[in-house]
Amino acid sequence: MTDATGGGLFPRERLAAAQAAAQDAGLDALLVTPGADLRYLTGYQAQPLERLTCLVVPAGGEPFLVVPRLEQPAAEASPAGGLGIEITGFAETDDAYELIARRLPVGTRRFAVDNHMWAEKLLAFQDALPGAQAGLAGDVLSVLRMRKSPAEIEALRRAGAAIDRVHRRMGEWLRAGRTEREVAADIAAAIVAAGHATADFVIVGSGPNGASPHHEVSDRVIAPGDPVVVDIGGTTPDGYCSDSTRTYAVGEPPREFRELYEVLLAAQSAQTDAVRPGITAEQLDAIGRDRIAAAGYGEHFIHRTGHGIGLETHEEPYIVAGSARVLEPGMAFSVEPGIYLPGRFGARIEDIAVCTEDGGERLNLTGRDLVVLPV
Amino acid sequence: MTDATGGGLFPRERLAAAQAAAQDAGLDALLVTPGADLRYLTGYQAQPLERLTCLVVPAGGEPFLVVPRLEQPAAEASPAGGLGIEITGFAETDDAYELIARRLPVGTRRFAVDNHMWAEKLLAFQDALPGAQAGLAGDVLSVLRMRKSPAEIEALRRAGAAIDRVHRRMGEWLRAGRTEREVAADIAAAIVAAGHATADFVIVGSGPNGASPHHEVSDRVIAPGDPVVVDIGGTTPDGYCSDSTRTYAVGEPPREFRELYEVLLAAQSAQTDAVRPGITAEQLDAIGRDRIAAAGYGEHFIHRTGHGIGLETHEEPYIVAGSARVLEPGMAFSVEPGIYLPGRFGARIEDIAVCTEDGGERLNLTGRDLVVLPV
Repeated sequence: MTDATGGGLFPRERLAAAQAAAQDAGLDALLVTPGADLRYLTGYQAQPLERLTCLVVPAGGEPFLVVPRLEQPAAEASPAGGLGIEITGFAETDDAYELIARRLPVGTRRFAVDNHMWAEKLLAFQDALPGAQAGLAGDVLSVLRMRKSPAEIEALRRAGAAIDRVHRRMGEWLRAGRTEREVAADIAAAIVAAGHATADFVIVGSGPNGASPHHEVSDRVIAPGDPVVVDIGGTTPDGYCSDSTRTYAVGEPPREFRELYEVLLAAQSAQTDAVRPGITAEQLDAIGRDRIAAAGYGEHFIHRTGHGIGLETHEEPYIVAGSARVLEPGMAFSVEPGIYLPGRFGARIEDIAVCTEDGGERLNLTGRDLVVLPV
Repeated sequence: MTDATGGGLFPRERLAAAQAAAQDAGLDALLVTPGADLRYLTGYQAQPLERLTCLVVPAGGEPFLVVPRLEQPAAEASPAGGLGIEITGFAETDDAYELIARRLPVGTRRFAVDNHMWAEKLLAFQDALPGAQAGLAGDVLSVLRMRKSPAEIEALRRAGAAIDRVHRRMGEWLRAGRTEREVAADIAAAIVAAGHATADFVIVGSGPNGASPHHEVSDRVIAPGDPVVVDIGGTTPDGYCSDSTRTYAVGEPPREFRELYEVLLAAQSAQTDAVRPGITAEQLDAIGRDRIAAAGYGEHFIHRTGHGIGLETHEEPYIVAGSARVLEPGMAFSVEPGIYLPGRFGARIEDIAVCTEDGGERLNLTGRDLVVLPV
C-alpha cells in the first residue's frame, strides 16, 4: 500500500498517535476539518468549503469522518477510505454539528479544533457543545507533524531539488527591461514544469521593491544594476512544500549592496551551520541577528529567521526571538534572514534546513554567493 | 481612481456601509482577516497566514488595519493604502491581539469575525476579550456582498464569458482514450488563457465517476459512449469568480442517459426561467427538484440547487430547501441541478444567474442541449 501523504508512516499509525496525544493533553476529542492536519492524519486532500467535513478523533473509541453526502464517494475513494474508519454522509438539510455533538463522549468538556478551522465552524461547534471548552488541535498535532519521518524528509528533499532547478534557470527570465510580473509568470510556469503540482507564491522584488519582504510582483520594469529578491515555492504532488529565496543582481549592483549582501551571507551561513539538536529556536535566530546588528543593519532585519515547513509552507517550528523550543532531529524549517533598506533595495537568502542526529542538512543547494546576471 | 475590487462602488463607501450594518446589528466591532471580506471592504488582497492581519471596523470611530510590520509596505501599496485609514504595523514579538483589544471601545461586549477567520485567531481574540461574545461578521457583510452593484455584475458577466470560451473548446481535449487528468490539465491551462488569473477547480467526471458530484479527476481512461461531467471555474484578475458545468457525451451515450439528460435539462431550464425578484431560495430549489422527482429521479438529486457567487465561488445566497430567503435584484448564484446514478453515470448543468429588476439573466450562454463529441 502506498501512503499518499508521503510514505513510510501509515496514516492509521498517525491517527493512533493523535489519539494518544489527545488523551495526554486531557482532551475529549479532536475535530479536524480539511487542510494539512486532515491530510496528515488520513491522506484525504479535501478543500475547505462551507459544508462541514470533519474528522472526529475521540480520546477513547474509534475515529470517524463526517462528510456531506455529495462528498462521500470522493472521501471513500481517497486514502481515508482505506483506513477502516467509518465515513458518514449527511444530507443538505441535516445539522452536521449536532450530529457530531451527539456522538461525542457523554460529558465532553474539552475539545480541540484544527488551527485553520473556519470561525463559522468553530462557533457552530461551541454552540452545539455548550459548556465545553475549545482549544487548538495544533497544540498536539504540531508536535507530531514537526518531527518528520525519513519518508517526509525525502519528500522535502525532492521539493527542495525541484525549486533549486527553477533558481538555476533564473538567467533565462530575469533581465533588465522586463517587468517583475512578466518574470514572475515565467517562474510560475517553471515551478510547475520542475515537478510541483502547484506554484504557491512568486515574489520578484526588484530595486526598492526588494525592501518590502512580502512584496509580490508589480509592473515595475527591472533596471540595470537592480538587486532582485526572488522568493518562490510550490507544493509537490505528494503534498510537501518548497520555499527558497535567492537575491540576484541584474548587472553590477551598487557597492553598498555588495557590502550588505556579504553581511547577510555570513549571517545566513552561520545560522545554517549552527543547526543541530539541542539548540533553541531563539538561539538560532540570534546567531544571524547578532551578526547583522554588529554590522549596523540590526534595525533592517525586521522579521524572524524562519518557519517550519512540511505539508504547509508555514508551520511549526518558528525560528523566532522568544521561542525556547529545542530543535530535534526531523525538524525542518527555513533559515532566511534578510536586510531591507527602505526606498533603496533589500536582500534575503533562504534555505530549508533539516535538523539531523548530529547537525543539519540543507535541502536547497544552489550557490549562495551573489549571482550577477547579464543585463 | 480605479476601484480594484470591481469598480463602481468605492471601498470607502463599503466600509461606511459595513460600519452602519454593524451598528444596526448591535455589534461593537467587526474583525476581518485576509479573504474575500477584506478584499470587498478595502481592495487589499492578502493571503491568510499565521501572523495576524486584521481590519478593525468599530461600530463608532475610525476603522484601522493592523498588519505585521513586514507586510506594511505591501498593505500601503494596496488599494487599502488609498482609503485614508490608519495602517499599523506590529513587530514579530508583539501581541497583536492584545494590541487590538486595547484599542476597541471600552466595554466591548459583542464582536464579530469574518466567517473564514482561522480558529487560532478567533480563540486568541476570545482570550484577549474575556466576557465579550463572538459572532460572525458574515451575518452583516453577506447582506452587503450578496447584492451586487452593476459594476460587480459586469465583472461576473466577464467571468462567465471567459469560462464559456473554455467550454466551447471542449472538443479539442475531451475524447476517448485520454485520461480525466490529461483532459483536466488542458482545461486548467485554457481557463488561464481565457482571461482568468487562476484556475480554481476542474472536475472531469467520466462514466461512473460522473455520479460523484465532487469527484475531481482520476487516471480513468475515457471510453466511447461515456457521459462526462465537466465543472470548471476560475477567478478573474479583478477577483470575481466563474463556475459553469456542462455534461458531454464522447460518442453516442446509453439511451437511458439521454432520457435522464432531458429530464435534467427541462428542470434546469425551468429553474433559470423562474429567477425573478420575490421568489424564495426554497421555491427556486423546488421547481427543479419537483420535476426531477416526478420523473422518478428524486433520490438521485442529492445536493442543493446552487450557491451565490462573487468574490468567492461559494457565498450567500444558497439556493437550498429550507431557505426562505427572498431573491432580490443584484443577487448572483448558480443554478445547477444534477442527477447521479451510482456506478453508472451522472449529469449536471450549471449556469450562473443574476436576479434583475424584472426577472433573471443567465451569465453562461453556451448551449445546454447535450453535446455529443466525436470519439
